[in-house]
Amino acid sequence: MFIEMSNFQILHADSHSEARLGLLTTAHGEVETPVFMPVATAGAVKGITPQQLQKTGSELVLANTYHLLLRPGVDTVEKLGGLHKFMAWDGPILTDSGGYQVFSLSPLTKIDDDGVEFASHVDGAKIYLNAEIATEIQNRLGADIITCLDQCTPFPIDTPQLQKAVDRTILWAKRAKEAHTNPNQLLFAIAQGGINLELRTYCTSELVKTGYDGYAIGGLSVGEGHENMIKTVTHTTQLLPQDKPRYLMGVGTPADIIAAVKAGVDMFDCVLPTRNGRNAFAFAGNGPLRLRNNVHINDARPIEADCDCYCCRNFSRAALRHFFNSGEMLGPILVSLHNLTFYQRLMVRIRQAIKRNEFAEWAKRFDY
Amino acid sequence: MFIEMSNFQILHADSHSEARLGLLTTAHGEVETPVFMPVATAGAVKGITPQQLQKTGSELVLANTYHLLLRPGVDTVEKLGGLHKFMAWDGPILTDSGGYQVFSLSPLTKIDDDGVEFASHVDGAKIYLNAEIATEIQNRLGADIITCLDQCTPFPIDTPQLQKAVDRTILWAKRAKEAHTNPNQLLFAIAQGGINLELRTYCTSELVKTGYDGYAIGGLSVGEGHENMIKTVTHTTQLLPQDKPRYLMGVGTPADIIAAVKAGVDMFDCVLPTRNGRNAFAFAGNGPLRLRNNVHINDARPIEADCDCYCCRNFSRAALRHFFNSGEMLGPILVSLHNLTFYQRLMVRIRQAIKRNEFAEWAKRFDY
Repeated sequence: MFIEMSNFQILHADSHSEARLGLLTTAHGEVETPVFMPVATAGAVKGITPQQLQKTGSELVLANTYHLLLRPGVDTVEKLGGLHKFMAWDGPILTDSGGYQVFSLSPLTKIDDDGVEFASHVDGAKIYLNAEIATEIQNRLGADIITCLDQCTPFPIDTPQLQKAVDRTILWAKRAKEAHTNPNQLLFAIAQGGINLELRTYCTSELVKTGYDGYAIGGLSVGEGHENMIKTVTHTTQLLPQDKPRYLMGVGTPADIIAAVKAGVDMFDCVLPTRNGRNAFAFAGNGPLRLRNNVHINDARPIEADCDCYCCRNFSRAALRHFFNSGEMLGPILVSLHNLTFYQRLMVRIRQAIKRNEFAEWAKRFDY
Repeated sequence: MFIEMSNFQILHADSHSEARLGLLTTAHGEVETPVFMPVATAGAVKGITPQQLQKTGSELVLANTYHLLLRPGVDTVEKLGGLHKFMAWDGPILTDSGGYQVFSLSPLTKIDDDGVEFASHVDGAKIYLNAEIATEIQNRLGADIITCLDQCTPFPIDTPQLQKAVDRTILWAKRAKEAHTNPNQLLFAIAQGGINLELRTYCTSELVKTGYDGYAIGGLSVGEGHENMIKTVTHTTQLLPQDKPRYLMGVGTPADIIAAVKAGVDMFDCVLPTRNGRNAFAFAGNGPLRLRNNVHINDARPIEADCDCYCCRNFSRAALRHFFNSGEMLGPILVSLHNLTFYQRLMVRIRQAIKRNEFAEWAKRFDY
């Protein structure tokens, strides 16, 4: 398949903020941005079939290279015809670089300028990853958007360490670009630098000099707090080219997303809708519901009266409470479905507000 | 809603066996028999939404009075508009009597001729159940088919104890019939008697004298083995009126079901498709698959090539194996869906074979 050079088009830029309505073109279809990507960690969004996922309004899905590398392994995914077929998801897929998981999930991580050796959190097997290997793995998995291996840093971190991680991230991104040869896959670089704005400037500018199909902002949502995060994001997006998509990794709450869209971010991923869904926490316009609470015991109302998801059209809060209290899988499934629908509806409203050139005003009224 | 006196019609009786094709009419629609009921223990078929359940070909669903009584309680189900609304299942529902669970799940069971006191396996709360209370509970839950409280016996059991359980079961069934006043709900009696054919004769004949909308055969599939079970079933069905539906409780494997249909049984329920599904055991025409097995590691084939279920149309054995090995909920969900579809397809084939007057011959060829 031929992908034209411009895989991203700004359809409308908000006059009163940095928010943009965009169109991202991938080998598996077009996606309007700002877009929220549900997380299919090991090739499955937890508890949700691809068919149900599609009905939540989800179009672009994230899968984790690290998890797929460990299980079932790249050979298996490739032999089975690639990630789309394996996951039964015919829409666009993005794979992350593995960097975040290597540093957050693995014991025994050994890193130098070439790459990183880590122990699988599943069976302790030693695995080596560098820029070229991470790229090749993602080439073989076959997602539509792949990402350069980065060194993701924790929060807080001292400046020399952060500087070293930034240097490696820039170097690895260059090598990843050289290693990447598949024109059907967009390659995103990941900017690091913690909440150090000087290092963010350095990292981002260097990546932009090399040039990528899109730019991810990594190393945030790791404990730095909403204010620090938004400050860093606002600083970073200003350094990024207007005509490339910007992806804020692992973010976040509705309030985080709205603030980041205002700062010019186009793409998001987060486990919150599904993780919270499994824990009986339902997102709702009038404030979230904790469905195990006794207050719902005889409540015939759905989570949200005006929600058209399968859960809200069919199940009362009382029934959901009962499913959670009885350990029925249907509770986690239904509330995950609702939460994903809630998030995708939020993204629709964000896009509509940008289209109407009212985003900044709308965002103020939005009470999340 | 008006239910005519004859809620069951024999559409075709097989010439070479006791198998019958029937039409069971309930307040929530008609169901062709032989029918298999998936088990929605606490108001949910584990891991499966009602929408997905319908697509497996399931029409009539069983829910457990005992579980619903403990959680969420009858008051809640009633306040929320009854079991159909609570479960979001608009098709027919059958509730069992609670007898089986009282004797298998509860510690501290105290029984006399009036009824049974037991401790909730959830919180230890003492609960009293007798024929009238069990009927009233089921009246209020609002299923389409309800069952008389019975004393379910374990296997093996000594004859005096079995005799006493049979006497109580007959007595309680009489009282249940007197207590039952809702003409929209069919009332089934449950025949007990273990594998003692004399006591089966006695229990069954007494119940038939009193007269019910249908007859369940209880106290089997509790460890007596296939041969004993089928011998008892064959003996019992001969004592039952031709024009009433016959329901073999808690059965069973495909081989059990086929043998029981041959003996004239019309209705079945069993947790096997879902419980096995959760344990990576997939039913298949060429023999079951254990999906955690290494042999499936790169197997691109679906569980069954000719199965039209969502799982088989979209997922390879390799992907299913991966989901189970990674602890992804999607594994249990998808294989439960397949297994239910497999069971319902088996029932379709059974009904077609009876219609063609070829059931006995077909059953011999059926290699389960």
